Amino acid sequence: MINARTFKGARDFLPEQMLHRERITQIMRNVFKKYGFAPMETPAIEYLDVLTGKYGEDADRLIYRLDYKTGTKDAAALHYDLTVPFSRVVAMNPHLAVPFKRYQIQPVWRADRPQPHQGRFREFVQCDCDVVGTSSIVVDAELVAITYEVLKMLGFNEFVIKINNRKILNGLTQYLGLSPDMTGEVCRSIDKLDKISWEEVAKELLEKGISNDAIKTAETLLTKSEISLSSLSSAFAAIPEALEGIRELEDMFTYLECMGVDAANYTFDLSLARGLDYYTGPIFETKLPNHPHIGSLTGGGRYDNLIGTFTGKSMPAVGTTLGLDRIYTAMEQLEMLVPMKTSTQVLVANFSEATVIPCLQLVAQLRSIGVCTEFYPEQVKMKKQFAYADKQNIQYVLILGEDELRQGKVSLKDMRTGEQVIIGLEEIEREINK
Amino acid sequence: MINARTFKGARDFLPEQMLHRERITQIMRNVFKKYGFAPMETPAIEYLDVLTGKYGEDADRLIYRLDYKTGTKDAAALHYDLTVPFSRVVAMNPHLAVPFKRYQIQPVWRADRPQPHQGRFREFVQCDCDVVGTSSIVVDAELVAITYEVLKMLGFNEFVIKINNRKILNGLTQYLGLSPDMTGEVCRSIDKLDKISWEEVAKELLEKGISNDAIKTAETLLTKSEISLSSLSSAFAAIPEALEGIRELEDMFTYLECMGVDAANYTFDLSLARGLDYYTGPIFETKLPNHPHIGSLTGGGRYDNLIGTFTGKSMPAVGTTLGLDRIYTAMEQLEMLVPMKTSTQVLVANFSEATVIPCLQLVAQLRSIGVCTEFYPEQVKMKKQFAYADKQNIQYVLILGEDELRQGKVSLKDMRTGEQVIIGLEEIEREINK
Repeated sequence: MINARTFKGARDFLPEQMLHRERITQIMRNVFKKYGFAPMETPAIEYLDVLTGKYGEDADRLIYRLDYKTGTKDAAALHYDLTVPFSRVVAMNPHLAVPFKRYQIQPVWRADRPQPHQGRFREFVQCDCDVVGTSSIVVDAELVAITYEVLKMLGFNEFVIKINNRKILNGLTQYLGLSPDMTGEVCRSIDKLDKISWEEVAKELLEKGISNDAIKTAETLLTKSEISLSSLSSAFAAIPEALEGIRELEDMFTYLECMGVDAANYTFDLSLARGLDYYTGPIFETKLPNHPHIGSLTGGGRYDNLIGTFTGKSMPAVGTTLGLDRIYTAMEQLEMLVPMKTSTQVLVANFSEATVIPCLQLVAQLRSIGVCTEFYPEQVKMKKQFAYADKQNIQYVLILGEDELRQGKVSLKDMRTGEQVIIGLEEIEREINK
Repeated sequence: MINARTFKGARDFLPEQMLHRERITQIMRNVFKKYGFAPMETPAIEYLDVLTGKYGEDADRLIYRLDYKTGTKDAAALHYDLTVPFSRVVAMNPHLAVPFKRYQIQPVWRADRPQPHQGRFREFVQCDCDVVGTSSIVVDAELVAITYEVLKMLGFNEFVIKINNRKILNGLTQYLGLSPDMTGEVCRSIDKLDKISWEEVAKELLEKGISNDAIKTAETLLTKSEISLSSLSSAFAAIPEALEGIRELEDMFTYLECMGVDAANYTFDLSLARGLDYYTGPIFETKLPNHPHIGSLTGGGRYDNLIGTFTGKSMPAVGTTLGLDRIYTAMEQLEMLVPMKTSTQVLVANFSEATVIPCLQLVAQLRSIGVCTEFYPEQVKMKKQFAYADKQNIQYVLILGEDELRQGKVSLKDMRTGEQVIIGLEEIEREINK
């Protein structure tokens, strides 16, 4: 006998979870389409060299490799995100009309330490929107607007989309008198500011060889509760790249306003850095300020050089990921999900051998008018059949017994009210739609 | 620079393919729900011992293993189908209300030789419906009815759902005077009858040690173009298991008839055997008789002992798989797919810097009433923007230039007719819904 167990860090989704997950992704699909995005998919399996060298060393270690031609150029692995596979597809399809706007909803895999309470798993679903072929900040703003609209439609209110720009972070490195190749290290440390204290971040920066003076300067900028873009403008007046980054965010905020995105749900945050190496411009990430233990619900940014790693020619691109598992974990913990077991509206009871045929005809008729209908497959006591409907939260039980058959009627019981009526076949539809 | 390439036997789906694939799975979901099935998902990664020993030796070799704790009890692999993971979940959740009816739409992986023209890939999507907890043949019939309804809704007409019963095949083995443990070998050979000739099958049976006499007897049953259940009844009169199998199929055909399934689309076929080891009762498979090179579009059957491999207690179960990739391949080859690039209905042109803000407000307004709208992100010549709408097959281009802005109007061009009208903002919705 085999010990039945689920792979560590992965989960089974029973109907009570999947009905919600399907509803959430359906809402996303509708919003994505409304913004002009079309669906795309890429295989779970990619050649290993397609994936490595883009995320940073720490992330590369978390890629799941297959036991298949290991050590050769055909070594394969499971994709770690959807952005790199998407970039590969763009590189392979130079005929695509640009701006190319696609969404992609698929699982990704990371050999990480699972932390279920925080919504961190080894297999989880990413819902990505990306645009390639334009440097216009309008599309960066649209991705933030999509994030806002999806979260509002799902019932979230108190979320904050934090926005920053890698160009401003490059400027910060320069401002601190550090060499440009330190930006990555500095980013990875200050990115932890929402989880650990400034003192701990400062200690980490010191260990990375940053001078005490530079750390003090950084402190004045990063520990102010809200530093505005305009005050940064004066501080970074001599750093053209930072000024460009600030101007991009100013435009973005203007666009967000005229698209009707509530200013309470987004903010500039100089400490937002995002872990991945490939970002080059605006970056964004959504947190629930009242539930800081739940990881980011969404995250994304501009990555103008990633496609170039395949083509040798840089191509502007920006995207965001809505994390289905983070969003689902948050909705579960915030009790935003109404219990559901099935979509079935009517259970047709199995009364006796003699009524199976007319029951199946009735079931077929109900299904043909779009009523989600089950026929109880076993001839067991009515009590047991009602108990099934009750457990599954099916609203109606329909009985076509021998008496009803003779009369050309059916008995319809509403499980919520307990009321039972005897009606003609032609009245069923009206009754259950009441 | 990295050579951008897609894993062999796997495919990228661009929007022009994915829009159709999403439509197909949406149709399936709707039908599955109408029949009382609820969604479920299991991880792609399973512990290796959960998967092996159920499909047969040949299949076990095609399971993709991960390069992760290989050789230990935690060795992991990608699931080969959805039936075994589903059985594992049922075994782990004894509290589930039965009959438990679930559908599951996910990719599976097989390290097979890819044959794209036949719809055979290494990564492909299975769409499964299964019912556990009842031996009633009604649910077997419902699975065939689902298959029929989905294929009809997709536009297929000339398909045949072949139906057989493992109990009849066990009876056949007995009838041929062979020991019961030969059933698997005999099945695997006769299952090839839709691809190779009887002579070749006979040769294979001979090589497997079956006597010439037995092969001759088999020939009389298997090479008749249509052997009926009733004539088999007389031949197998002394074999109770075969008679039980025949009775089950007779019931199934009665149920199919009263559910309104067209008899032209299903048939009893004694040579249908299905490859997998775990089947125990009725089995079914859909072929396109006019396009025999395309593999089965769907396939399934009853597997009453599979869940028992995890629990030690047998539990009745039956299911079917609709192969998205086979169905999609067939629809592509039969030219059943209308070209589509995007769901976008309106492209709002980017006229000048001065009109960006009012354009974005207009875009937001259109999206808020559910119109799928894109704003062209770059200020380039109108000709280029029209060319984009044309290439993407977007029906309407809306221009809000400085003139229009002053008049409080917009220009709306219908790309199909070439007509352009100047209308008020309040008229846009009516115009595009005309």
